[in-house]
Amino acid sequence: MSLQTGADLRAMRERKPLVHQITNYVVMNETANATLAIGALPVMAHAPQEVEEMASVAGALVLNIGTLSEHWVAAMLAAGHAANRAGAPIVLDPVGAGATTYRTETAKRLLGELEIAVVRGNAAEVATLAGQKAEIRGVESVGAAASPQLAEAAAKALGCVASVTGPVDHVSDGGRSYAVANGHPLLGTVTGTGCMATAMTGCFLAVRSDAPLEAAAEALVAFGVAAEDAAEGAKGPGTFHAALYDALAVLDPETVDSRYRAA
Amino acid sequence: MSLQTGADLRAMRERKPLVHQITNYVVMNETANATLAIGALPVMAHAPQEVEEMASVAGALVLNIGTLSEHWVAAMLAAGHAANRAGAPIVLDPVGAGATTYRTETAKRLLGELEIAVVRGNAAEVATLAGQKAEIRGVESVGAAASPQLAEAAAKALGCVASVTGPVDHVSDGGRSYAVANGHPLLGTVTGTGCMATAMTGCFLAVRSDAPLEAAAEALVAFGVAAEDAAEGAKGPGTFHAALYDALAVLDPETVDSRYRAA
Amino acid sequence: MSLQTGADLRAMRERKPLVHQITNYVVMNETANATLAIGALPVMAHAPQEVEEMASVAGALVLNIGTLSEHWVAAMLAAGHAANRAGAPIVLDPVGAGATTYRTETAKRLLGELEIAVVRGNAAEVATLAGQKAEIRGVESVGAAASPQLAEAAAKALGCVASVTGPVDHVSDGGRSYAVANGHPLLGTVTGTGCMATAMTGCFLAVRSDAPLEAAAEALVAFGVAAEDAAEGAKGPGTFHAALYDALAVLDPETVDSRYRAA
Repeated sequence: MSLQTGADLRAMRERKPLVHQITNYVVMNETANATLAIGALPVMAHAPQEVEEMASVAGALVLNIGTLSEHWVAAMLAAGHAANRAGAPIVLDPVGAGATTYRTETAKRLLGELEIAVVRGNAAEVATLAGQKAEIRGVESVGAAASPQLAEAAAKALGCVASVTGPVDHVSDGGRSYAVANGHPLLGTVTGTGCMATAMTGCFLAVRSDAPLEAAAEALVAFGVAAEDAAEGAKGPGTFHAALYDALAVLDPETVDSRYRAA
Repeated sequence: MSLQTGADLRAMRERKPLVHQITNYVVMNETANATLAIGALPVMAHAPQEVEEMASVAGALVLNIGTLSEHWVAAMLAAGHAANRAGAPIVLDPVGAGATTYRTETAKRLLGELEIAVVRGNAAEVATLAGQKAEIRGVESVGAAASPQLAEAAAKALGCVASVTGPVDHVSDGGRSYAVANGHPLLGTVTGTGCMATAMTGCFLAVRSDAPLEAAAEALVAFGVAAEDAAEGAKGPGTFHAALYDALAVLDPETVDSRYRAA
Repeated sequence: MSLQTGADLRAMRERKPLVHQITNYVVMNETANATLAIGALPVMAHAPQEVEEMASVAGALVLNIGTLSEHWVAAMLAAGHAANRAGAPIVLDPVGAGATTYRTETAKRLLGELEIAVVRGNAAEVATLAGQKAEIRGVESVGAAASPQLAEAAAKALGCVASVTGPVDHVSDGGRSYAVANGHPLLGTVTGTGCMATAMTGCFLAVRSDAPLEAAAEALVAFGVAAEDAAEGAKGPGTFHAALYDALAVLDPETVDSRYRAA
């Protein structure tokens, strides 16, 4: 196994997999646009009457608890079970785990009841779920940065791939690990870029479901390289945000692998 | 009857009609901004306590099932009945009809219980409602393109104007039809541009409620011409998206009619 | 007491206060990004299971009734009581008060049951709550502009700071008042800029909770100056919108006070 971001990006654009997302109100437009820009097809659906039907035809399922409530959690569970039955990989974004008991417990419940392929979060969120101490303010990690040790420990504790993002991202399945140093500080100035990274993880999982560790790392390479391109010429968070979709859309499968930086 | 996009655009900007929208979470900001940019006033309201009051003072009502759920469908029905009583035209966007049973059935229910002036959808969504075979992936039509035959058949089957968008749009009331070839491929790279086209339909319906066929076609001419302008200088989906609002805001009533292309 | 926008902006960027927002679906992304851009940390949370916990650790609470419904109003009340107990100031945006009975009554109920520090609205919304006649179309004030008299009367009637925005903003605590003439007409062409002004008010309240009148005025100075910067080079609503986040992010604490215009 190794990273083949370009090849998987090419496959994604050919197959245009459907990526079903049950996510938060703040970023729905953003993750849909990022999904479309990189080359997959997003669909948002959360009604109990349709989540199972939608999840069962999707290439991957994205669950994000950023503005959770009772009915949405129920929808996530129903969609998750349907995705599990259909063999579609699930990525979970535990937004704000550690900030409130409800978020922590809900993230744990989803991890407990569903077979999750990848958890993608910041250091505080993942550390909380792994049973470590962490400092979070709202949904922002304000304590320690992502580390290879945290990713490995979380993967072992949670029994899935842990994708911990920060200035350098660390992705681990508990045994093997990847570091991804691509990206740009402007990502931290726009709401929902973490959620977008999770959506990108769903997109890559849809074309590489047999290798969730690699899919998770490739998503961060692709997203990070696009962010580097978007930062050129950006004057701040607003123009960077618009340029990010441009950069995802023209991300070049031929060169993206050569731009991967592990440190 | 004929198209008078410029005159109706001028009337819209003078009257600033209120366009009540019960739409999906993904595109609320986008359709509100597009409505404001072209010259009308958007309002989003979905609570059972207020939808009837709001719909009854609006110039048009936009119903969009993109992220439907039980309470929202109930709100659409209540608002729709109030709009019908007040004589305000309704445009329905059956997002994802054909993708799940719930979406198909809900779109049919809205069409059955309400007097809908225009249905605006992609080829797969409209074909599904017209009882034809269609292929849809999530909310994306992946089968046949819009055709004059489909628009005409759908208008007859549904008893309202059918506005089917694609590379070339086709609008029909079952008897007369318009083709609109304006637009740009970048529209397909941004989430919610179909929903924006529906919102634009609502805006034109508000100033030309006596001629829903023409209003629906004019909305697509205006939106398509703005997209053409926005594409100039755009570097991808993100900068195109921002430029689209700019282009709608400066859309020139004096020249828009001369830019209409039927093919 | 006097305005010290630069000093409070500097304090905000150092402390990065958490600003808890229960707001409408249309602008969640926008107010989160504006909050982040100016230097605070936004968090959106509305579930009954967590609103009290989140509000009790926040530096300020933003309540916005733009797309209200029963459960969201309950969440606003629960969060509001928790914020009151914790001593965190609350800013209320009565979006559409006057447009429907439900909005008017809900705004009054929040004002009645909670200790609100600042009400930020347009002239029609604030006049409605102050018991004056007002004309509103959807969420847009179409009657008289903001005036010092209205702000003062509303502050006295509501028992809190009234922040009435328009071409010139007027902020009053019933005794002392500030006029803020900063801003740009392009603000009126983008949905949710009023909601962003309310979010900015929350950000300044979080660092100057002892002087809500000054905090409310400083927020409008900062937002208005950023809008002036964003308007330079903007080609319309879309590019202005993106530039607004850029301008908020680079807003200079050294010069912002000298740019304040009272008329």
